[in-house]
Amino acid sequence: MLNKVTIFGVGLIGGSFALALKKAGVVQSVTGVGRRSATLQRALELGIIDVASTSVAEAVQDADLILIATPVAQTASLLAAIKPHLQPHTVVTDAGSTKSDVVAAARAALGEKIAQFVPGHPIAGREQNGPDAALADLYVGKKVVLTALEENPPAAIETVKAAWQQCGAHVHHLSAQEHDAVFAAVSHLPHLLAYALVDDIAAKPHAALLFQYAASGFRDFTRIAGSSAEMWRDISLANKPALLQELDAYLTQLGSLRTMLVENDGAALEQLFGRAQKARHDWISAIEAAEQNRSSEQGGD
Amino acid sequence: MLNKVTIFGVGLIGGSFALALKKAGVVQSVTGVGRRSATLQRALELGIIDVASTSVAEAVQDADLILIATPVAQTASLLAAIKPHLQPHTVVTDAGSTKSDVVAAARAALGEKIAQFVPGHPIAGREQNGPDAALADLYVGKKVVLTALEENPPAAIETVKAAWQQCGAHVHHLSAQEHDAVFAAVSHLPHLLAYALVDDIAAKPHAALLFQYAASGFRDFTRIAGSSAEMWRDISLANKPALLQELDAYLTQLGSLRTMLVENDGAALEQLFGRAQKARHDWISAIEAAEQNRSSEQGGD
Repeated sequence: MLNKVTIFGVGLIGGSFALALKKAGVVQSVTGVGRRSATLQRALELGIIDVASTSVAEAVQDADLILIATPVAQTASLLAAIKPHLQPHTVVTDAGSTKSDVVAAARAALGEKIAQFVPGHPIAGREQNGPDAALADLYVGKKVVLTALEENPPAAIETVKAAWQQCGAHVHHLSAQEHDAVFAAVSHLPHLLAYALVDDIAAKPHAALLFQYAASGFRDFTRIAGSSAEMWRDISLANKPALLQELDAYLTQLGSLRTMLVENDGAALEQLFGRAQKARHDWISAIEAAEQNRSSEQGGD
Repeated sequence: MLNKVTIFGVGLIGGSFALALKKAGVVQSVTGVGRRSATLQRALELGIIDVASTSVAEAVQDADLILIATPVAQTASLLAAIKPHLQPHTVVTDAGSTKSDVVAAARAALGEKIAQFVPGHPIAGREQNGPDAALADLYVGKKVVLTALEENPPAAIETVKAAWQQCGAHVHHLSAQEHDAVFAAVSHLPHLLAYALVDDIAAKPHAALLFQYAASGFRDFTRIAGSSAEMWRDISLANKPALLQELDAYLTQLGSLRTMLVENDGAALEQLFGRAQKARHDWISAIEAAEQNRSSEQGGD
């Protein structure tokens, strides 16, 4: 049982974490901290938090676990503000989409207290934001990646891991560098590519004609281009080295594809398309098999 | 009322056309032609066709309307086989995803009978194929683009247009060149990009790790990479000039984006992402408004 959990940023990610812990009955009291009093007030009304605070000192006092779920650009200054009030038993984690930059910022901000910070990244989201979008089951069956530091004592890692498991999540462990390389490939680059395509089309003189004929394939391909421009600017810059590496590999791949097209090399095109089709099919099948296993496990409870 | 409609290729596209015309009660008899007798037999069982034929002469005889819905690579040889049997009153159309190449092939194959061929492209599909995937309402509310030829008499265009409208589709008119430029941008290029990304990731030594963390954004972005490799090889080569032009514009766009990233130009990144986010939002809003108008029109019938 956690006596006091403090959440900086009571929107979708932080709010859902609070609701899930409450639903699991593993927290006595949740304190929310935010820059906007209207948001805190709404989180109180929705039962996401029990105490709204605008004082970092008060919010950090006696907390067992602190989650930083604000936009990543605020993490460094928040950790610096938290540090003077951080008691030895308190564990701090975050929910940022990039990890190497957060680890560097945390080392700088927390100094000798770095061992109390266990970086994390829940792989879950919705298109809505704010406390009204928070859901108690947002994390059920989802992955949370912890990128624990060598300084973290096992008990601190366990506190964060247990909390996410109580939210219904599956906890995975990667190094910060592995994490950033993986998400550059499967999340950050696709976002860049989708934004680039929509902007490319929107800038053409006959954009209206083009959008008129865009259909469901285009809609799904570009869904992630509906995401927050500010958030993805921050992620792109925060994960720049890994993202550039993936972008360059992709540009090389497009260059090969272009050559196949120019040379009318139908066999090579069909091979490339076929490999992709098979890889995607195998991936979807593996996901479906895992989901079936999970639901039969739940059925057996 | 059409006395006899003949369909070459009784799969998803051709089969759905037949079912829709039958449901609308505007056709007396549908003849199906195919290379595989099992497929024709299945189409008979499903009530898609009334007569199965393996003779082009017999199938073409006395037809009011002929739809070619086979893979596009077969269109030229089919038109050549049809030509000697084609009576003056019969109108021929097709369902190919590219049009300039089909028009060129049709001119070569049909010669002086070219005026009887009205090229078309229904913008509809499903992930399944074959007669069992055919649906009477596949085309309801969908677009069909006709790329009529200057030789086509108005009555021939009207026959094809009326048939698609009876299927519930909205008929649009473009030149073959306009059609190919539009679909290179909003369909063919996205397919290439999705195939390229999945193959790029699948070829990496740590592909299994990457796929393990791919989530719903990746799934939607790559959905079109699950499409038939053979079909998209043919489309890519058939629409090569327009596709290369779109690919090169996109490579230029990615180059600019890369520069913004290298130079840590957060303002430029946010502008590009924000323009794309807004363009996509406006497009989705326009689609939703059109759908609402359509359903209130239907409600008023």
